[in-house]
Amino acid sequence: MDAMKKFVQKDRYAQHIGVEILDFDKGSARARMEIGKHHQNSAGMVHGGAIFSLADAVFSVASNSHGTFAVAINVSISFFKAATSGTLFAKAEEVSINPRLATYLITIIDDSGDKIALFQGTVYRKKDSIADIVK
Amino acid sequence: MDAMKKFVQKDRYAQHIGVEILDFDKGSARARMEIGKHHQNSAGMVHGGAIFSLADAVFSVASNSHGTFAVAINVSISFFKAATSGTLFAKAEEVSINPRLATYLITIIDDSGDKIALFQGTVYRKKDSIADIVK
Amino acid sequence: MDAMKKFVQKDRYAQHIGVEILDFDKGSARARMEIGKHHQNSAGMVHGGAIFSLADAVFSVASNSHGTFAVAINVSISFFKAATSGTLFAKAEEVSINPRLATYLITIIDDSGDKIALFQGTVYRKKDSIADIVK
Amino acid sequence: MDAMKKFVQKDRYAQHIGVEILDFDKGSARARMEIGKHHQNSAGMVHGGAIFSLADAVFSVASNSHGTFAVAINVSISFFKAATSGTLFAKAEEVSINPRLATYLITIIDDSGDKIALFQGTVYRKKDSIADIVK
Repeated sequence: MDAMKKFVQKDRYAQHIGVEILDFDKGSARARMEIGKHHQNSAGMVHGGAIFSLADAVFSVASNSHGTFAVAINVSISFFKAATSGTLFAKAEEVSINPRLATYLITIIDDSGDKIALFQGTVYRKKDSIADIVK
Repeated sequence: MDAMKKFVQKDRYAQHIGVEILDFDKGSARARMEIGKHHQNSAGMVHGGAIFSLADAVFSVASNSHGTFAVAINVSISFFKAATSGTLFAKAEEVSINPRLATYLITIIDDSGDKIALFQGTVYRKKDSIADIVK
Repeated sequence: MDAMKKFVQKDRYAQHIGVEILDFDKGSARARMEIGKHHQNSAGMVHGGAIFSLADAVFSVASNSHGTFAVAINVSISFFKAATSGTLFAKAEEVSINPRLATYLITIIDDSGDKIALFQGTVYRKKDSIADIVK
Repeated sequence: MDAMKKFVQKDRYAQHIGVEILDFDKGSARARMEIGKHHQNSAGMVHGGAIFSLADAVFSVASNSHGTFAVAINVSISFFKAATSGTLFAKAEEVSINPRLATYLITIIDDSGDKIALFQGTVYRKKDSIADIVK
């Protein structure tokens, strides 16, 4: 999992957004994002793009956690409730995996435990190893 | 459209990501995003979250352009090609609209005109006016 | 739940496809579909449309089970494994609900318990009661 | 295109639903479906599953039209307007294609030309040829 630690550290976009990966294992990952002013949309709520990006970060870690490089091909996200302050949490679980494709479900909640969004994503698994990707 | 100009200016997240709204009209909008190091994922390519965020910004402008406050309820995005440098462009067009719901299709291309992603999003149209939202 | 029993009986399309609703409660529903030759696609496997239709039937029952008429506005489905014979099962659970919108997750498995597909659907909840709809 | 003609003829599910393929070419296809009582949902409108199945039939033809066997991995559909009688039409166009993956956009309209639904689907392209599949 050393290559995976490096993989997590190299995600500059996740850092730019303020996503912090909490932990991960084969097929799963968890993260948090403290809501700041730079997450606000025109109405002062957390932007859909910020919520997606938080979910996308754990999707990336979970889907690459098997050591095989995986790239997103499709994502569907449903938004349930506006978030304005506090912390958001995302948790990814593996729904299905085969040598070429894998699908993950990511739940995003706020610090009261209320569901903010549900993200369903599919990756295409390439032949490169994560160790080579992070070199 | 004065309230809409203010609406565009108030999107702090879009600015944090580096999205620049180029123009908009009733039901449509266009934007660009110059790719920088802060858009990179663990593999050195533009993060899916950054591509989504660019598309989400024009989705927000196009769906709010009628002057009625609209919130995203569902988005599906397909990713076609990795982007690494240059500029990305997003263009939103209205597919369907009724008093409560509207759907938009957003195409993301790179500066060679190659398709990077296709985003299909639906909003719920609330009763508030944009003029009140940006006050 | 008498109106809901009538609601289930009136779904002529579900019957045409061979979907049998097993049971339902507030926010949930289960169904089965015995695979027949009329479900086959050009490659002799169960058609994606048949799998979607099975899931859509429990989505309809679960989302209307609160007694308020609900119509589908968005669905995303991921297909994991081809099905060729035996019986398929679908189970709907409610992920989120508010007065106007609700989202459901439907899992489709085969008779070995293998996941065939995952369906995520959102409804718009109208003002009509189910009792009036089935009159 | 002889194998493709056979491919179209072998879609028993499409025939069971009442889908008629009108024409097809590399990456595109069109179909119609006359609305009957067996398409009705519990509220007397055309079932979401029937609309999806019509779209899925042209998606299958368009994505297999290059002669390489393609299987659906992800679909997202948005429903805009209820349909009750007359004829529905579906048209598939290719958005993106590479050796392993391809994405299609399918528009469903009624006989007044009103948009009924928009379907965005991605296939995984296997190594089998259509000629072998329809043997």
